[in-house]
Amino acid sequence: MVVKSEIKHIRNLQQKKYRTQSGLFVAEGIKTVSELLKSPFNPYKIYSTDESLLSGLLAETAMVSPAELKQMSSQQTPNKILGVFYIPEARALDFSDWILVLDSVGDPGNLGTIIRLCDWFGIRHLVCSPGTVDCYNPKVLQATMGSIARVNIVYQDLEELLVQAPVPVYGAFMEGLPVYGQSLPPAGMLVMGNEARGISRALSESIINRIGIPQYGGSSTESLNVAMATAILLNELRRPTQT
Amino acid sequence: MVVKSEIKHIRNLQQKKYRTQSGLFVAEGIKTVSELLKSPFNPYKIYSTDESLLSGLLAETAMVSPAELKQMSSQQTPNKILGVFYIPEARALDFSDWILVLDSVGDPGNLGTIIRLCDWFGIRHLVCSPGTVDCYNPKVLQATMGSIARVNIVYQDLEELLVQAPVPVYGAFMEGLPVYGQSLPPAGMLVMGNEARGISRALSESIINRIGIPQYGGSSTESLNVAMATAILLNELRRPTQT
Repeated sequence: MVVKSEIKHIRNLQQKKYRTQSGLFVAEGIKTVSELLKSPFNPYKIYSTDESLLSGLLAETAMVSPAELKQMSSQQTPNKILGVFYIPEARALDFSDWILVLDSVGDPGNLGTIIRLCDWFGIRHLVCSPGTVDCYNPKVLQATMGSIARVNIVYQDLEELLVQAPVPVYGAFMEGLPVYGQSLPPAGMLVMGNEARGISRALSESIINRIGIPQYGGSSTESLNVAMATAILLNELRRPTQT
Repeated sequence: MVVKSEIKHIRNLQQKKYRTQSGLFVAEGIKTVSELLKSPFNPYKIYSTDESLLSGLLAETAMVSPAELKQMSSQQTPNKILGVFYIPEARALDFSDWILVLDSVGDPGNLGTIIRLCDWFGIRHLVCSPGTVDCYNPKVLQATMGSIARVNIVYQDLEELLVQAPVPVYGAFMEGLPVYGQSLPPAGMLVMGNEARGISRALSESIINRIGIPQYGGSSTESLNVAMATAILLNELRRPTQT
């Protein structure tokens, strides 16, 4: 049983404004909530329709009815559990390994998928331009499948970061050199651009190493979706050079 | 101006049953409709709110109001043009190049993305099990961004296909051998499985070559989304072996 004002507070956290004000965000579903509870993320309060999911948790908990959960949820068919967590402070970047950088990726599903790819390929640091969709957006979180717990996500201005970078900076461009021919260093930054516009012109000036994924069999005006291109380029960074 | 029964007919085509009965499907948006009009797909009738988009088309056309377009459309904000096309007959498979095979891929966005990847990587033939989502589903078509015009999609039973395959059959498995170490042949079939269950047990028996994408830095119970895994494996098939 929860009071109406509490439900309203949780619903408000679907909006970035309220997340920023309160320093809290909402995660939904057994998979994502359990991954966050196992991680350094701190829970604020966990709600569930199923008492067994709450027992033993080192967090404030509350039982809710399915109707209450639905009122709190951003999803059409909420999945048993909803957790409110503190937004963690971003950790300092570690330049000893590859860092992924996103310039204004706008689609929540794309960002969520990219976070999941970072987790798979062991990319521990993800830098997002302020114009990139918020990683605590409910649709992003849903697409990360809990992998957000294992990636340090930093929102910051990219121009300064790239200019001062202590490692080589690579960027994905339609007209970039085929990634296959590159001998990629063991550490660097890889910049991926916006879905429609690619990497912004201002930022492009700081990127000397322009790489791309050749379209098989010829050139075309088509492009790969940014999440697909990220999957392929992270695989190229991580695949052993001796095959 | 269109009559109500015509609008109803077009709305019905959002359902597979009506598409199968009529042999027609609906494509929406300037990008997808124009790609289909440039392809061997045959238009049945094209509707638009913008007369300039219809002029010169070698097809039956009709002007509609924005309200009528919205009534016809599967989208919340329809994009100026909607085309009804004949479902093409599937062409015979060409085993001289790689063929992608999907075993019960259920998510329309995943199938649409995979069709787009086939187009990018020059995979001309895509075989789907009968349990795979219909490629003329509106959500699939939206995700293909028109690339469906360039891929031959065949729905058929996979067991017989794989048993009789005149080329080596590869399958993506969580526990498969790292794809990086394989010397892949110039032609073959690559099977991708269902989002939750992977490749079905019955089908697995026909697949000798089991490959996978190693998770960087260790093993985990996580998996890559099927569209991401397809992106990476098609890139591996197509990347030059000399880097």
